[in-house]
Amino acid sequence: MQITTDMIKELRAATGAGILDCRKALTEADGDFKKAVDYLREKGMATAAKRADRLASNGTVELYSHGGGRVGVIVEVNCETDFVARSEAFRQFAHEIALQIAASAPKYVSDKEIPETELLHEGEIAKNRAIEEGKPEAILPKIVEGRISKFKDEVCLLRQAYIRDETITIEKLLNSTVASTGENVIIRRFQRWELGEGLGE
Amino acid sequence: MQITTDMIKELRAATGAGILDCRKALTEADGDFKKAVDYLREKGMATAAKRADRLASNGTVELYSHGGGRVGVIVEVNCETDFVARSEAFRQFAHEIALQIAASAPKYVSDKEIPETELLHEGEIAKNRAIEEGKPEAILPKIVEGRISKFKDEVCLLRQAYIRDETITIEKLLNSTVASTGENVIIRRFQRWELGEGLGE
Repeated sequence: MQITTDMIKELRAATGAGILDCRKALTEADGDFKKAVDYLREKGMATAAKRADRLASNGTVELYSHGGGRVGVIVEVNCETDFVARSEAFRQFAHEIALQIAASAPKYVSDKEIPETELLHEGEIAKNRAIEEGKPEAILPKIVEGRISKFKDEVCLLRQAYIRDETITIEKLLNSTVASTGENVIIRRFQRWELGEGLGE
Repeated sequence: MQITTDMIKELRAATGAGILDCRKALTEADGDFKKAVDYLREKGMATAAKRADRLASNGTVELYSHGGGRVGVIVEVNCETDFVARSEAFRQFAHEIALQIAASAPKYVSDKEIPETELLHEGEIAKNRAIEEGKPEAILPKIVEGRISKFKDEVCLLRQAYIRDETITIEKLLNSTVASTGENVIIRRFQRWELGEGLGE
């Protein structure tokens, strides 16, 4: 396996070990990053590997608290440069996203994140409910499809209606931020915690 | 299965359905909470079950941001009453915990949360490192034990030295908060996000 300069740089950034040691570790580990970290630690050449897979990126980790600590939101929004990360437009967007999450409690950023089992479960409920309501068999698939789509609109941040302007979705708001900043902007991850809610989710 | 008033209350709180409907749903579901929620939704008697397992609890969801959005911390600290939750001592404690997490980057609240595989992995590294250093075979177990203990002190919040007074651990600080508030205080969960860090952990 070819050991590249980038691989050595990355290992060095993660462990603080010397360049030659990093090259040796990567060679021994046949290019496997985690094994190379272990190798360096075993040799006493790296002290910590807690966050070895750290990667450089720009943006902000935005926080928002609601109800005096009853609801807390943490969201990471990324952009391409530090310049944009510090701009008013980007900061404002990140803040609006945190507010939106606090108010509308999405579960996912996009519909790609919804587990297949959850969609099947929702489909099952929608179908049984339509049967219960006496809907004709022939239109059941269409009804289920419509309800699944509505479900996605509720649980996916990007599909939600923006709380300050319900005529646009968060995805539209994101796109206009991409346009105004001239950079790719990504809502990477979020957590919304409510005091005392169940942890087993 | 006996359907208790508490079960009905809980289902009602989670779904907004009527008391009689909740009783019927629980009976049909043989006391299974999630199935009862599904039953109500299928009957069109409950609209949302996003956070059905919500439980009442006191405390606060505390936030802390560092480096202009480079690091964000969210932590839930629980206590028994709303009175203590609003007290200065409790609020101060929650804030100190958020600061500690931002500064010292623990991975777990207590050592009970460390996955067994991670401990085995750390033990393996410690052992190989000790062999590499030429330590005698006979004292290897003691060395490994010592290093595992040190590892736990680093990654577990409760075992970490308090950043403002390194002579005490966070567990001691917690205990003194329990003493001063007269209530059980629990650090339930936390997340510490660093801008751009790897997500695959």
